[in-house]
Amino acid sequence: MKLLPERTVERLSKYRRVLQRELDNGTDHIYSHELAKLLHITPVQVRRDIMLIGHTGTLRKGYSIDNLIKLISEIIDCSSSVQNVAIVGIGKLGQALLDYLNDSNTKLNLSAVFDNNPDKIGTSYSGTVCYSIESLKKIVEREGITIGILTVPPEFAKEVSTMMKDAGIVGIINYTPVSLKLDGTFLEEYDVITTLEKVAYFSKPKNAKLL
Amino acid sequence: MKLLPERTVERLSKYRRVLQRELDNGTDHIYSHELAKLLHITPVQVRRDIMLIGHTGTLRKGYSIDNLIKLISEIIDCSSSVQNVAIVGIGKLGQALLDYLNDSNTKLNLSAVFDNNPDKIGTSYSGTVCYSIESLKKIVEREGITIGILTVPPEFAKEVSTMMKDAGIVGIINYTPVSLKLDGTFLEEYDVITTLEKVAYFSKPKNAKLL
Repeated sequence: MKLLPERTVERLSKYRRVLQRELDNGTDHIYSHELAKLLHITPVQVRRDIMLIGHTGTLRKGYSIDNLIKLISEIIDCSSSVQNVAIVGIGKLGQALLDYLNDSNTKLNLSAVFDNNPDKIGTSYSGTVCYSIESLKKIVEREGITIGILTVPPEFAKEVSTMMKDAGIVGIINYTPVSLKLDGTFLEEYDVITTLEKVAYFSKPKNAKLL
Repeated sequence: MKLLPERTVERLSKYRRVLQRELDNGTDHIYSHELAKLLHITPVQVRRDIMLIGHTGTLRKGYSIDNLIKLISEIIDCSSSVQNVAIVGIGKLGQALLDYLNDSNTKLNLSAVFDNNPDKIGTSYSGTVCYSIESLKKIVEREGITIGILTVPPEFAKEVSTMMKDAGIVGIINYTPVSLKLDGTFLEEYDVITTLEKVAYFSKPKNAKLL
């Protein structure tokens, strides 16, 4: 199968979450317009995404929720094995993300957390041991970690992200405000302050009127 | 001035942050290609954004950093007064975001945090008092809060976001995994798990090869 567009993968992840909730509530089939409504997108978008992954519903009953969840899971999860994740920088944001990860039903396994604070190294965070950033390469190789969540202070972002890449991490989510560039790595950046400033701009009285 | 596109506002926020760092380092002028390189985007993009806000550099010296920061600030900040922000749901993520906000140089002022946990109500979080969600409307009106950060558990997302809107909050950043729809409100959604699943998809060995 060809690589799916980023936005499609994001929506598939959301479809699955909503579908699982519907299944848990006892629903077994769903129409594209119902699924669309739950996510505030258009039915055409839903049908296009689901056709793209090779699934078709019936006009009369809609999509089988169970089948659709299985198909999405085959596509977006690693079918052969779980994927191992590390959180690098275990401050408040790192700990919040750790809770999200532990509470979610993803096929992602948190294998290690890293920090350079001696008080944190050796400590267990909800069952996951914190290692020194110096031992990043050793632990990443030993645990087969492929995904890294970067939550270090901005001044360390560049250096630590290079260490993550060199250690063999393929996908990095950068939560620092420093824009990174790492060839051969899938890099997803999220900048809290930029989001805040954007919302602030659109919430100004004179701009809000134009919305 | 017309409402700027969302992506432009995001980039202006990032330009300003990078420019401030350069200014602090003693640089007074910058070329578009230098600014572009710091953010890993194209010089054409930088020039287009800066023309859009009505600024021009000189070919010989580039942009005056000081002037550019001032102009961006006039546009994206509220020039007349600061904007007041509330964090609704002060768990680990809420507390992490509170630290980001307090450490940043934005013109955003954290006025209140809200929670429904009796142990948290009345407590001070880095100097900001936690109120009961029941008093949301009263406090939002009294403090003139226009921006809300939603970090409650998913099961409360819909109800609490409606309360925020009804209280007069104009811009909401939704960090819960529940997709919301609120007419007349600028809504920005960020879903941690979707981001993780997306990065996981692109980090699978067979997909990473295609990147």
